[in-house]
Amino acid sequence: MTHVLSRRNILSAAMGVAGAAVVERASADSLADVPERGPGNPLTATSERSEFVHIARLPESTPGIRHVDPSRAINSKAPLDKLVGTITPADLHYERSHAGVPEIDPAKHRLLVHGMVQKNLVLTMDDILAMPSISRIAFLECTGNGWENWKSAPSDVTVQNTHGLISTNEWTGVPLSFLVDLVGVDPASTWMLAEGGDGSAVARSIPLTDEILSEGILAHGQNGEPLRPAHGFPLRLFLPGFEGNLNIKWLRRLKFGTRPFMTRWETARYTQLQADGSARQFQLHQDVNSVITSPSGMMEIRLGYTRITGLAWSGHGRIVRVEISTDGAKTWRDAVISAPALPKAQTRFQADWVWDGAPTKIVSRSTDEKGNVQPDRASFIAARNTNALFHKKKIDAAGKVRNVLA
Amino acid sequence: MTHVLSRRNILSAAMGVAGAAVVERASADSLADVPERGPGNPLTATSERSEFVHIARLPESTPGIRHVDPSRAINSKAPLDKLVGTITPADLHYERSHAGVPEIDPAKHRLLVHGMVQKNLVLTMDDILAMPSISRIAFLECTGNGWENWKSAPSDVTVQNTHGLISTNEWTGVPLSFLVDLVGVDPASTWMLAEGGDGSAVARSIPLTDEILSEGILAHGQNGEPLRPAHGFPLRLFLPGFEGNLNIKWLRRLKFGTRPFMTRWETARYTQLQADGSARQFQLHQDVNSVITSPSGMMEIRLGYTRITGLAWSGHGRIVRVEISTDGAKTWRDAVISAPALPKAQTRFQADWVWDGAPTKIVSRSTDEKGNVQPDRASFIAARNTNALFHKKKIDAAGKVRNVLA
Repeated sequence: MTHVLSRRNILSAAMGVAGAAVVERASADSLADVPERGPGNPLTATSERSEFVHIARLPESTPGIRHVDPSRAINSKAPLDKLVGTITPADLHYERSHAGVPEIDPAKHRLLVHGMVQKNLVLTMDDILAMPSISRIAFLECTGNGWENWKSAPSDVTVQNTHGLISTNEWTGVPLSFLVDLVGVDPASTWMLAEGGDGSAVARSIPLTDEILSEGILAHGQNGEPLRPAHGFPLRLFLPGFEGNLNIKWLRRLKFGTRPFMTRWETARYTQLQADGSARQFQLHQDVNSVITSPSGMMEIRLGYTRITGLAWSGHGRIVRVEISTDGAKTWRDAVISAPALPKAQTRFQADWVWDGAPTKIVSRSTDEKGNVQPDRASFIAARNTNALFHKKKIDAAGKVRNVLA
Repeated sequence: MTHVLSRRNILSAAMGVAGAAVVERASADSLADVPERGPGNPLTATSERSEFVHIARLPESTPGIRHVDPSRAINSKAPLDKLVGTITPADLHYERSHAGVPEIDPAKHRLLVHGMVQKNLVLTMDDILAMPSISRIAFLECTGNGWENWKSAPSDVTVQNTHGLISTNEWTGVPLSFLVDLVGVDPASTWMLAEGGDGSAVARSIPLTDEILSEGILAHGQNGEPLRPAHGFPLRLFLPGFEGNLNIKWLRRLKFGTRPFMTRWETARYTQLQADGSARQFQLHQDVNSVITSPSGMMEIRLGYTRITGLAWSGHGRIVRVEISTDGAKTWRDAVISAPALPKAQTRFQADWVWDGAPTKIVSRSTDEKGNVQPDRASFIAARNTNALFHKKKIDAAGKVRNVLA
């Protein structure tokens, strides 16, 4: 079902219409208004954005308070509506912190490794930077991406508001497995506590599964350079595909044991209340999901050809299929997935659409390599609980696009 | 010959020594100096770099004038010595321009497409952004990367000085093949002129080979967001693996014809003088190459374990092998290549090394999937011409690392 973007796919029947529309508009233009060429600005030590480009994260508070005093923001959302491709610029990677961003001197930072190990170690950043490293392009998603809209969906939210707590970067660091071998973790150890060095000292218990041992990274690099403070400088845990909260920033301690440590962050927080009153703990993997980023909430489309584009992802592996519906989930067709679809990374999809001017709803649905299919709201609620987020884009007769729940 | 980074590879005999060294150093440290945790800084619209991280491009002039008035710089080099992974941050992507950086209003920018086409078109950025797009992680390398050192190698240059005119980003844009089909390029057309909108109006003739038609991109995105002005905002040509100069920035015109247009940029410039007085034109592909980024010029190493790391790349496809020598090219062994080794993208390699304190020279050698092997200086000069750049790192008894030619 995977459609790799190819010339033949591009030249679909819809693109015949699109092509004609472009040709008609384009031939009417003239070059009269094109500015003269002249000497430009000097070369610099860093490339700034164009003055004509306005792209930024959106600091927000809870629950659903979008226009907030930045000093009180607890998250800052990535501009999914304006991003292209799959990589998120490091300075626009979403943020979610519980006590703000510490400014840590790497020379003073230490990582304590203790518990069921042959030898307790206190590592400096020099020690860590001298170790072998691997790199991985993968997404990170806040455990609660979209959560503040689960009860209702204000009509004027953008996709940045609804889904902006996800980003994809290239993460570089020491394989967790290397450190485990280095300190001589007892084979009987099955859980690891990871603790952060910010004021909230977030600490989570992480099961030492094969997947976590083989893919976990003690990350010090982000998109080719050192982590930024907002994302954990100088060191964070990065577990591809696992819930955001486990990916401890400003990592300062790893303790090895045989059972979960039951910190407040996995008992009082980060659990999901079930219908029977019990709580689901240790969600672990981020589930298969997707979202249309354009056209999306607060945009406007014109009659005729519109290119639908969006992002799909799964904490379980690669995305193998994305379907879209332009009739409110009555019928579905395959979108084109951009290659390569990397495992546990955001994957770009696109589809051609010719809008006939009638009000409708559009939505996407992704499938991963393990066969997991992005559920609709009804089936999810029946299977799990009521903390569920299901968004469609409603388009009215004037072409205005608004986010709507179910 | 490809060694994918794995736990078994990491646990080499050398790492036994490295591990012991780390354990010995680490256990002596205490946590006494670790600062207290406290409230951090507010969340923001963009993540800044740490105040403790100093990473930037280096504006330079020619020939070999490294400390130059920035207003006179003609290139600005990427900090390869400080980068990790494979992605280059967009704001640190190397720059090379002939008349500075124009600040173009995308609303006024136009792309004229004419010549052997069914219909001349003038496209706006809105037209282009509505077209299908693809994304590609690939390197861009200045045709003359390293050129100013070809006659001599000052002893105090860094790898940023010697090889800094290369970077890797994710480029997003319209497939060239889509545009060719859209305008109805005459099948008899075999060459395309691409012209830029800066003060120097760089224009190059590009052969319409299968490779260029299938991989060329009219790029508007860079690492997930709009191009930066330094890199061609709002539109540039991106031809994965092809010499930097062909990748016209601030693209404003494409003209289709049947022969090279012989602009000054491919006759008076960007040709290589041969021993017999003729000039080699249309180099086209960037050849297979690699460089050790650490330890590199102006660094210092200590007795014992050092991790060698660097980057390898080829305009012909994937890197399949990287070898390193730590005895001045007398003997070679395989380094470990980080997966995935993407075609025409920079690929990271690493090797363990235990330095015994004796003066030596270290160097890397890469092989691509087409069987091309990075040549040494003697064989290259014999085969091509004297414009050749061959660097090794010389390490003296004190552990000081200096760049040296051949």
